[in-house]
Amino acid sequence: MKDLKGALMFGQSGGPTSVINASAAGVFIEALKHPEFITKVYGAAHGIKGILDEKFYDIGQEDPKELELLKYTPSSALGSVRYKLKKAADDVTDYNRILEVFKKYNIRYFFYNGGNDSMDTCNKISKYLASNGYECNIIGVPKTIDNDLCGTDHCPGYGSAAKYVSTTLMELNLDAKVYNTGLVTIVEVMGRNAGWLTAASALAVHKGLGPDLIYLPETPFDIDKFVGDVKAVCDKNNNKCIAVISEGIKNKDKKYVGEFMSSSTDLFGHAQLGGVCFSLANIVKEKLGIKVRPIEFSLLQRCAAHLASKTDVEEAFKAGSAAVKYALQGKTDKMVALIREDKDGKYKCKVKLVPVSKAANSEKTVPKEWITNDGTGLSKEFIDYALPLIQGDAKAPLEDGLPRFARLKKVLAKQ
Amino acid sequence: MKDLKGALMFGQSGGPTSVINASAAGVFIEALKHPEFITKVYGAAHGIKGILDEKFYDIGQEDPKELELLKYTPSSALGSVRYKLKKAADDVTDYNRILEVFKKYNIRYFFYNGGNDSMDTCNKISKYLASNGYECNIIGVPKTIDNDLCGTDHCPGYGSAAKYVSTTLMELNLDAKVYNTGLVTIVEVMGRNAGWLTAASALAVHKGLGPDLIYLPETPFDIDKFVGDVKAVCDKNNNKCIAVISEGIKNKDKKYVGEFMSSSTDLFGHAQLGGVCFSLANIVKEKLGIKVRPIEFSLLQRCAAHLASKTDVEEAFKAGSAAVKYALQGKTDKMVALIREDKDGKYKCKVKLVPVSKAANSEKTVPKEWITNDGTGLSKEFIDYALPLIQGDAKAPLEDGLPRFARLKKVLAKQ
Repeated sequence: MKDLKGALMFGQSGGPTSVINASAAGVFIEALKHPEFITKVYGAAHGIKGILDEKFYDIGQEDPKELELLKYTPSSALGSVRYKLKKAADDVTDYNRILEVFKKYNIRYFFYNGGNDSMDTCNKISKYLASNGYECNIIGVPKTIDNDLCGTDHCPGYGSAAKYVSTTLMELNLDAKVYNTGLVTIVEVMGRNAGWLTAASALAVHKGLGPDLIYLPETPFDIDKFVGDVKAVCDKNNNKCIAVISEGIKNKDKKYVGEFMSSSTDLFGHAQLGGVCFSLANIVKEKLGIKVRPIEFSLLQRCAAHLASKTDVEEAFKAGSAAVKYALQGKTDKMVALIREDKDGKYKCKVKLVPVSKAANSEKTVPKEWITNDGTGLSKEFIDYALPLIQGDAKAPLEDGLPRFARLKKVLAKQ
Repeated sequence: MKDLKGALMFGQSGGPTSVINASAAGVFIEALKHPEFITKVYGAAHGIKGILDEKFYDIGQEDPKELELLKYTPSSALGSVRYKLKKAADDVTDYNRILEVFKKYNIRYFFYNGGNDSMDTCNKISKYLASNGYECNIIGVPKTIDNDLCGTDHCPGYGSAAKYVSTTLMELNLDAKVYNTGLVTIVEVMGRNAGWLTAASALAVHKGLGPDLIYLPETPFDIDKFVGDVKAVCDKNNNKCIAVISEGIKNKDKKYVGEFMSSSTDLFGHAQLGGVCFSLANIVKEKLGIKVRPIEFSLLQRCAAHLASKTDVEEAFKAGSAAVKYALQGKTDKMVALIREDKDGKYKCKVKLVPVSKAANSEKTVPKEWITNDGTGLSKEFIDYALPLIQGDAKAPLEDGLPRFARLKKVLAKQ
């Protein structure tokens, strides 16, 4: 163990997940075990913004029981941010400010929990501090329901969102069949460029209660083909069809379908909000004359902690605690990765470090060979990949029949 | 016990719930215990339609384990229907057909599971059969997430939907606060004329993680007041506000707000589908200039069996089994009701019979005195009423991390 002594700063960034706080719990609980090296544990309010604004919480003042409950508490408990650092070569203002704050509070450990942009942030800060001779161990902790980070088999947050998508589609499958009249259900799932989460609806297909059609952003989306696909299902299925689309479906010119259809207005002349499922619903309704119900999973799919995957919660926690352990060993400029090492057909996953640059600013999409030839389904390879990630239940204890989420005091660190 | 011997017919009607199949399980499991009186147990495909079409399943051929799993399986396993019988005085065609089918299969027990219209159906068939001298014991089993049936303290189906609404709002509350930028979230909940389900969001308020504003159909809805209410919350709350509206909000002239705002079109000139939350979102966005996210709970709120209330599942089952027991005692033209008899501040509920006419074609709305004066919240009386109904978890066993719902063989009865 390397003898670096100082405070620890942890921040959460980007869209939250059901288990991002489980990683926070992993970092905090592990960090508080090492007062001989980690003198203070801080949580930045709204990620990098909290560091720039010198606004962070003193985690040592929190009740350990509440930190434990963080495992089951959705959303980013510290607050999140979408903030992309400029290149240091173009503008060093932010970097200088970060260095200043880190020096003032003697921050020697920095962990940032997020997606591609957050790994980019880790990478940039790490390089800048090193080039200025300031010693600080920096580790990225992966998180995203999109599951699009390179360098890791999968991302904490994905398993729980995938469990939400697949479970909910099984329930919807039963509900949508209930009347003996026609109904096309179009479900919209998050994921701008990678279709991992939309693909999770194939797990419901695997259990016999899935959608009929699945459209990922990886395959060019053609509206006429889509209508034809829906019609073909309706024709053989008593005018019933469930289609799942990614919010990020793009036409062959790589334009988001949701974008070029969104200049719609209502009675008051206001632009219509809402996803691409609504526009597609209108088209199907007009062309096929069948009742259509568009359903946008919206924020529900990323905050449904009541349906979290135990595997995901445990891995998210482990990713956080491993980051601390690695940093205490002197590791820096790395990302914690989940490495799959299945044995005898049984899921096994361990934690490893990869260069943070590996994950920064790149996107891992669903392999083309896992998408069926007609572009509306997933192969067995995908099922084998995704099914282990949604195993087990892990949720907050109930109080009055409702989840008892963590209640942090959030005591601001004295400036 | 009265000595009426013959077959039993059970049908499901109207919009499904998470626990309507629990009542089916109650009817089936109890009925199959009494072969000395109940010679056959049938389940009508798509309710009354299945009787008219002579299409029903022989439940005696189902695996008892699958009938047990029905308790945790959402949606109407037999298929549902929306079909309102004409008055017999106007047209006896359907009634004659029902009598014909009942005679052919010697059906002496008939149970219909649904809302107001279904109780009306029970009432009409009961009177017609009696006036034609055909002995048949008919009992209505209540069901609706709307909770708007008269004669019963609450309806099976409501507790689970209320648990979904309140739990999900707690999760959304955490998610919607995650960035330090403004966001108005407008959530739309089912319930055309009664606001019970929308009111359930007040349970999240009770736990400190609820919406800021709640609008029921019981209070006339004024768009300008709504925008003003949202602005007032945003002003004191860093431009953040969560509002929950019922799909059935009406203006002072009793016109559905969703209806007079829905003549919106998209780029292709198609009418926009989707709920009133989208139109309100546009207005708020334009008037306040704050980002708005409309979220429609859609079908999810009525089929989320993974989040069912144990209390609700047990009461739904009991309502079904009690219907059989009462019918075997010779009772007819009645509805099973849940009667609240709290003792020492502890929730107690028992099953009783009420005249089915009491529930037919009337709607129970949220008492005015339970709605706060400004029309945007619920009183403690509502919390005391609703909180016991969402207690406990009861869900399907997991198989591969996903719910193992009932798989019925659905063997059609021989004609």
